[in-house]
Amino acid sequence: MNNVLIIGAGLSSGALIDYVLDRASDLGWFVTVADADPLKAEAKIAGRPNGRAAWLDVLKTNDRRELIGRADVVVSLLPAYLHLEVAYDCIKLKKHLITASYVSREMYSLADEASERGLIFMGEMGLDPGIDHMSAMRIIDRIKADGGKIQAFRSDTGGLVAPESDDNPWHYKISWNPRNVVLAGQGTAQYLQDGKLRYIPYHRLFKEFRLVDIPGVGKYEAYANRDSLLYRESYGLNDIPNILRGTLRHPGFCEAWDALIRIGLTDADFPLLHSGEISFYELLDAYVGKYQGGSLRDRVAQMLGVSPESDVLHKLEWLGLFRKKKIRLPNATPALILEHLIREKWQLKPKDQDMVIMHHEIEYVDANQKPMIHLSTMQLKGNHAEDTAMAQTVGLPMGIFVRLVMEEKITSRGVQIPVSKEVYEPVLKELEEFGIVFKEEVRPL
Amino acid sequence: MNNVLIIGAGLSSGALIDYVLDRASDLGWFVTVADADPLKAEAKIAGRPNGRAAWLDVLKTNDRRELIGRADVVVSLLPAYLHLEVAYDCIKLKKHLITASYVSREMYSLADEASERGLIFMGEMGLDPGIDHMSAMRIIDRIKADGGKIQAFRSDTGGLVAPESDDNPWHYKISWNPRNVVLAGQGTAQYLQDGKLRYIPYHRLFKEFRLVDIPGVGKYEAYANRDSLLYRESYGLNDIPNILRGTLRHPGFCEAWDALIRIGLTDADFPLLHSGEISFYELLDAYVGKYQGGSLRDRVAQMLGVSPESDVLHKLEWLGLFRKKKIRLPNATPALILEHLIREKWQLKPKDQDMVIMHHEIEYVDANQKPMIHLSTMQLKGNHAEDTAMAQTVGLPMGIFVRLVMEEKITSRGVQIPVSKEVYEPVLKELEEFGIVFKEEVRPL
Repeated sequence: MNNVLIIGAGLSSGALIDYVLDRASDLGWFVTVADADPLKAEAKIAGRPNGRAAWLDVLKTNDRRELIGRADVVVSLLPAYLHLEVAYDCIKLKKHLITASYVSREMYSLADEASERGLIFMGEMGLDPGIDHMSAMRIIDRIKADGGKIQAFRSDTGGLVAPESDDNPWHYKISWNPRNVVLAGQGTAQYLQDGKLRYIPYHRLFKEFRLVDIPGVGKYEAYANRDSLLYRESYGLNDIPNILRGTLRHPGFCEAWDALIRIGLTDADFPLLHSGEISFYELLDAYVGKYQGGSLRDRVAQMLGVSPESDVLHKLEWLGLFRKKKIRLPNATPALILEHLIREKWQLKPKDQDMVIMHHEIEYVDANQKPMIHLSTMQLKGNHAEDTAMAQTVGLPMGIFVRLVMEEKITSRGVQIPVSKEVYEPVLKELEEFGIVFKEEVRPL
Repeated sequence: MNNVLIIGAGLSSGALIDYVLDRASDLGWFVTVADADPLKAEAKIAGRPNGRAAWLDVLKTNDRRELIGRADVVVSLLPAYLHLEVAYDCIKLKKHLITASYVSREMYSLADEASERGLIFMGEMGLDPGIDHMSAMRIIDRIKADGGKIQAFRSDTGGLVAPESDDNPWHYKISWNPRNVVLAGQGTAQYLQDGKLRYIPYHRLFKEFRLVDIPGVGKYEAYANRDSLLYRESYGLNDIPNILRGTLRHPGFCEAWDALIRIGLTDADFPLLHSGEISFYELLDAYVGKYQGGSLRDRVAQMLGVSPESDVLHKLEWLGLFRKKKIRLPNATPALILEHLIREKWQLKPKDQDMVIMHHEIEYVDANQKPMIHLSTMQLKGNHAEDTAMAQTVGLPMGIFVRLVMEEKITSRGVQIPVSKEVYEPVLKELEEFGIVFKEEVRPL
């Protein structure tokens, strides 16, 4: 095997493309980077000899199949809904496939076919999902091997801004898809507490966050992810009484985000008739029709039940929500307006460093019936806006896994997520060379 | 014309079928009542000579067309999404069509074809929408004819329980679709206030209700309907600065319904994994995982920020939400569980009377520049659970309109809603014979 195809040369592809191309000459690989914009692919290849940019409209079946046909391993960085077309081609043309996206039901339905053809389709091979699976399974497998019984699994991850570059009152900047930031948590979240299912509806999610004190890192807020139960089976934790997965934010973020929800600005289903003409001031004003007297800031504070001088109001003001600047997005939903706003306000400046934090807390009873807790923490800062910790932690696991597959070091086949020792051991080990290191601490509970 | 086809013999068809059949012998009509359950149609016809029950699976195109082909006027009581198939048949077979449902965009797209073929497709010919359009337009047309200029239009309607049969702490019973009661208000509501668009997101809708004091009837709460702007054009009120349409509830209802929303029980997108096995107690308990100490009632009160002895908690308890009774609905969403619960708890007992209230408040400046207000109120009580005010106010306008069309008294053609004088005058006049009477009061503002 010596041909790698990477489909997609977008924002977070840098670390992956660098990893693969930096090894290509030594290992005798040829790497094709395909994108709808071949100049983007060229830029990412940056003149390295074994790389080739290709123009690809991924919806053109023949073009796609021709490229895939010439590869041994395919990495898809496409939006999740486009992976499936690529996966069908990989089945047909007998190619291995790697993605960082959640494995859909449709993708799982290809498991038998992939297996029969001797292929591995590895999904969820990024940060979250990805490194979370691998780092958690390394601990879970060890505890079980030592005769322990796991009682609680809590895992939190955040894509944040590094303190060095933290210069706004939200203490947040965007290192991933801003659309997902706006829509985060919509629906009802579920988790397990003392053997009981627990639910949190969206409009309480950012009120009912936990405070997580991460040793050596600091205190963060964590709001619950939509479905903490998702990996109980994959992790071999079917009988665990406590499982909770969450997203980390700087203290104070959740209360202020909850204010945006309460105002109504995260609704993604309601196109505003006049959003092309009005200002942010008029938009906010339209949401507090019930409240009378004082400035707009006073009325928003009154609706929220907080002081006009509170941190929350300060954060809203900083976003520019009380300004008489035009929105200029015709027929936009509140969610789209908010997305455009935070994309601008929470943008990483060229030299800004982002920061990824992942933290697991695993409680168990050891072989001597002693209650123990295992804390595991990874913190990584990015180099600058074009080389983020987010892109590294999403891209490097895929890159490393490309190498493992190319070198035929992976024996498992079918549709997989990275929970087996064969996968997580070499990937986590090599990630350490890139500074992606978990600090582990085990102590009596 | 002497053949009427009524499709659907469900719960609220009684008043319509009675109206049409009671006039059939005198006027020489033949009336076919078609339903998937012909026994239901038989029962509603109740042996009257000019009526005939027909079995109809409405999805069977040929059967449907055969019945429609033999009619002159078709009334569709089908769920809204099925009207369109009937409408296509009516175009093809040149038949008039009457429904009480909202006219969809697709239905409006048939306007030219219906017109060209000399047909009237009358939609929104029930209570709300229906009588609201007619009674409002009678006032609006009169004010305009007298040289007045309308400044504010507020219109509220409620399907409630009559005080005589009001024996539960919610002061509410169900006289229409319980599914719609559960999903009421989901989305963002919009209305106009002082020339400005105003928005209320769902999670604030039942907090930010208005109190409406209806002369001679009493004080009610009104929460805003989803889109108060919908009829600005149809009503000829394009430049009106204030327009707000709402739904009436007994005082105290909105705060308690808001509690159900805050708990999370109106989410219709989240199937609960264990809803087949758990009790209502366990369901509520799952929603207050964050709150510790005391009884479930105490913890729910704590989450809501009210006293455990408050009216709201009393209402929740009355619904049986703290009981250890099994839910027994596998894989149900919270909304479906709530629907089943209220369908039982808020059911009209056989002798119970429901009550419909409709109230308009129209502010205007008269020809002498004097600010005036026109108040218009209709209140109707049902006879018993099988002959509700709801079924009468929904069915009778359609029945009367059938007669007007059969007697060729309606000249307008195309897809219509009942806003023209030709329609509202005779319909409102005849409704008075059934006790559906508006009390009008005009006074200086």
